[in-house]
Amino acid sequence: MPEPTATIHDVARHAGVSAATVSNFFNWPDKLSDRMKERVGAAVDALGFVPNMPARQLRRQHSGIVGLSVVNASNPFFAGLATAVEQVAEDAGLSVVVGSSHESPVQQEKFLTLFEQLRFDGVVVTPTDDELEPLRRRRDRGTPVVLVDHEDPDGRLSSVSLDHREGGRLGARHLVDSGRRRLLFAAGHEGVRQVARRLEGCREVVAAAEGVHLEVVRSEDLDLTVGEETGTWIASLDADERPDAVFAGNDLHAIGLVGALLAGGLRVPEDVAVLGYDDIPFAARASVPLTTVRQPIAEMGRAAARLLLDEIRTPGSAPRDVVFPPELVVRASAP
Amino acid sequence: MPEPTATIHDVARHAGVSAATVSNFFNWPDKLSDRMKERVGAAVDALGFVPNMPARQLRRQHSGIVGLSVVNASNPFFAGLATAVEQVAEDAGLSVVVGSSHESPVQQEKFLTLFEQLRFDGVVVTPTDDELEPLRRRRDRGTPVVLVDHEDPDGRLSSVSLDHREGGRLGARHLVDSGRRRLLFAAGHEGVRQVARRLEGCREVVAAAEGVHLEVVRSEDLDLTVGEETGTWIASLDADERPDAVFAGNDLHAIGLVGALLAGGLRVPEDVAVLGYDDIPFAARASVPLTTVRQPIAEMGRAAARLLLDEIRTPGSAPRDVVFPPELVVRASAP
Repeated sequence: MPEPTATIHDVARHAGVSAATVSNFFNWPDKLSDRMKERVGAAVDALGFVPNMPARQLRRQHSGIVGLSVVNASNPFFAGLATAVEQVAEDAGLSVVVGSSHESPVQQEKFLTLFEQLRFDGVVVTPTDDELEPLRRRRDRGTPVVLVDHEDPDGRLSSVSLDHREGGRLGARHLVDSGRRRLLFAAGHEGVRQVARRLEGCREVVAAAEGVHLEVVRSEDLDLTVGEETGTWIASLDADERPDAVFAGNDLHAIGLVGALLAGGLRVPEDVAVLGYDDIPFAARASVPLTTVRQPIAEMGRAAARLLLDEIRTPGSAPRDVVFPPELVVRASAP
Repeated sequence: MPEPTATIHDVARHAGVSAATVSNFFNWPDKLSDRMKERVGAAVDALGFVPNMPARQLRRQHSGIVGLSVVNASNPFFAGLATAVEQVAEDAGLSVVVGSSHESPVQQEKFLTLFEQLRFDGVVVTPTDDELEPLRRRRDRGTPVVLVDHEDPDGRLSSVSLDHREGGRLGARHLVDSGRRRLLFAAGHEGVRQVARRLEGCREVVAAAEGVHLEVVRSEDLDLTVGEETGTWIASLDADERPDAVFAGNDLHAIGLVGALLAGGLRVPEDVAVLGYDDIPFAARASVPLTTVRQPIAEMGRAAARLLLDEIRTPGSAPRDVVFPPELVVRASAP
């Protein structure tokens, strides 16, 4: 790798001052007179000198940056979260950088280590799994951490989450109350805790209802493509084996699913009702506008950023949990 | 801010070795025997020592990280770009962090400075404007930089872009050929170079056609909300003042626009045809499936990541430009 073009000593020589003065220019500018600041600044510009933030951080312990580790920033749900965190952080003068773990704990760990090593001011995380010990350790070592979409059962980390069990109940009750009797729950893989909670809520409602059948399908992912695959499979079933309602793992999955059902000659909602989860901006604008369980993601993102700012400003403050209620939004796909 | 709990000297004391040996453990592990590695590793774990990457970078000049500065990661177009860059970078063992400039040159400059100061291995940027000098300076100082969706007229930076003038021609020709005579071009604000190029292409086609009228509307942003506002305004016009086709600034804008036209009692495409730009995953799945000019964003992202990897591996290699052709995708909104 090429070396930086100028060192602090080059700048000092160019400005005719000591290296300590150049260091003061970057680290304690108040120590320098305006004339001296101008002189050093001119040398810095002339040589294209890059102040070495890492070295400065060792002294200052302040980067002005918040790290956000999300499961998948290409899902509009997480993109909405990132936008909300950015707004609050930027209002407080902090920049936000985002890493996508793609549900890999190894990748998440990489970002957490990176954010800690670069002495970021704080971290917002949507955890990939239940293993929160690495996050708790980082908080104990001085990096404020706020969880989103996940609570810490030990109460050692602040969190912003949603009552997913109630979300599962809300969705299932709506399908059962509108006369659906053969429910399919598309759950993604076993490891997704939020979906597992929803399934529990869904099961409660089904158990209390008369003559309602519930089937669960698993898949590695919950995106448009997997939704299309699930929809194509449903469209291939005989009418008496076919579910009359699908509770999809998220809106992306539901939108893909609706497309494949229509392409397979089925009517939505007449033959199969489809219910999503999240209420991403495209849910209302999909080919069949989507009934869904809304997560108020902008509010959740802003709440997470505010919790983090509080922890940055008051280190060692007690962890807090903010829980949002889910909300059923009824549209054409499951009226 | 709290201090890290352990220093390299604490680890050395705990392991009964010199600080230099602990340093070797992190920086030149091959110098240590397996037994010594185990011994130092155990002390590191016991004390929760965080190796200081900034200090290590001063020697190594290698962070294993690529920075991506995009205009707005919450637009699925840029999210798709990020995903593609991540895939190629991660295959090469590099992690990617993403910052959204929200079209602010100041915010973009913040991220570029941050990425340079942290000695990131390279940077992929979708520039906010034509001012490329800060990017060229960073490349000259040793940080590989690849532009996406923007060429460097001076040929000093590698780039991946699309022929937007041809994209504008393609879209306009389709609308004119299908009999539309009153075109509205929704262009966003003046500063967006890509849209300005498309408008040039669109004007060429209109100038060569008989009896076709072109109007241009400007707006600060090009998103769902602005699309809805534009659609509501169009729906409020008298039939003889109303455009019979809209060439929208991007798909988000087009999807919002179609929704507002339908809500305002107009038919798409019978009353107003709508043509988007980008072909984001939701374009095909919108309430009226969207005719659009496709940018192959996944291919573009992969190409950008490969150019960057080449520049990281072969510092000082000559800049290269990869230009992709746009492609018209015809769906229901403008058949």
